[in-house]
Formats: sequence, C-alpha cells, structure tokens
Amino acid sequence: MATIETSSALSHPLIESDHIEGTAVFDVNGKRIGTIKRLVIEKVSGHVAYAVTTFGGFLGVGSEVHTIPWEQLHYDTALHGYQTGITEERLRMAPEFSLSDTTLLSGHERQQLREFYTEPMP
Amino acid sequence: MATIETSSALSHPLIESDHIEGTAVFDVNGKRIGTIKRLVIEKVSGHVAYAVTTFGGFLGVGSEVHTIPWEQLHYDTALHGYQTGITEERLRMAPEFSLSDTTLLSGHERQQLREFYTEPMP
Repeated sequence: MATIETSSALSHPLIESDHIEGTAVFDVNGKRIGTIKRLVIEKVSGHVAYAVTTFGGFLGVGSEVHTIPWEQLHYDTALHGYQTGITEERLRMAPEFSLSDTTLLSGHERQQLREFYTEPMP
Repeated sequence: MATIETSSALSHPLIESDHIEGTAVFDVNGKRIGTIKRLVIEKVSGHVAYAVTTFGGFLGVGSEVHTIPWEQLHYDTALHGYQTGITEERLRMAPEFSLSDTTLLSGHERQQLREFYTEPMP
C-alpha cells in the first residue's frame, strides 16, 4: 500500500510544499547527484525562485548545500526528479553565498547566481 | 533576537517551502480568517497551484480545511500575509473535494475549483 501511494505521488504533476524534501536531482546522464532540501518561493508571484539542494555525500561524507536557480532545474516525469546541466566543476566555483543552508538570498544575489550558472565555463 | 529574525523573515519577499505553514490569511477587511497549511506546487513549472488553508477555529473549535486556488490569494506586504476576497458564505458552498487535507487535486478538479471561486455568487 505504501509503495502504491509513493509511486502515485511521484508521478502526480503536483507536489506539496511539505513533501518536497528528498526530491532527486540528476545530471545530464541521468545519474543521481543530489536531493532537494527545500524550495524558496516568491511570496507575491507564487513562483519558485531557487532550490536549496544537497549534492554528493550519499554516505554522509562530503555533502554540500548549494542554492540552484530554478531555471537550471527541469522536471523529468520519467526520472521523477529534476535534471540539471550543472556539473561538479561548476558547483566548485559557485559564489560563497550560494552555499548557505538557511539564508534567503537578496535580489542582487539571485541575479548574480543566475548569471554565474548561465555564463559559459572559462 | 528571535523577534528580529521572525520580523525579517516576515518582510522578506521570499519564503522557504518548509516555513510556509502558519502564514496568515486575511479577508477584504484585513481580519485574520485563516492560516496556510501548505502550498501545492506544479513540479514542472514551479508555480504554486493552490494553498491548503485552515479557516476559523482559532480556539480549536470548528476549523475547516479548504484548498484555495492561488489566484484567490494576494500577498500583502503590509499585512505579512495573504488577502482573499473569499467569504465564509462562499466557503460553505465549496465543492466537497476541496475540503480534503491531503489529496492532490486532478486537473479537472483544479479547473472546477477555479470556476467556482470566480463565478458570481447566486
């Protein structure tokens, strides 16, 4: 019964704000590289601004939290999770403020983050 | 210190998905009539579809959960909460399925709910 419920929730196009934690994040090759910890939502528009995402450390070692602009995550209905083109290399160069687990980003920081993830790699 | 943090979180334009519970809902006169229990988000677009909202029962008596289409909630930065034009009378006539606390609505139900709350009162 629990399995059926989980599978139906996974395939439903909607998700509850209190059930977001643990949603999988995959790389371009479909390899699971992280999980979503929370989404951060614009109060006025009701649009997701970015996702606080834990990368790596599935055995509890070396995991890192990064804030990822929403545009860099694409929901894949077959994978039941978000796919991203962001590489480990890129994550390593991310601005320091985006590694915070709890801080709500300012408009300026959000803009900086969007630009960082859309600029071509040097 | 706790007060300062709360006040700053209240006035920030962003909110974390795990901090949504308890956001206040006001009627057109600015009277607090309910609180948001959770938001339900479209996985693909990252837009809020509707809010599961508890109305009334602030003393633990007679509270009722209703799913409210996002378009019926307008964030008011002065009130630090959502304002809605929905009246108690309208809530009483709401479709049965919108009183469920946990079910994710189907596309058809969402459409029905949107129409119910935009139709003029009989």
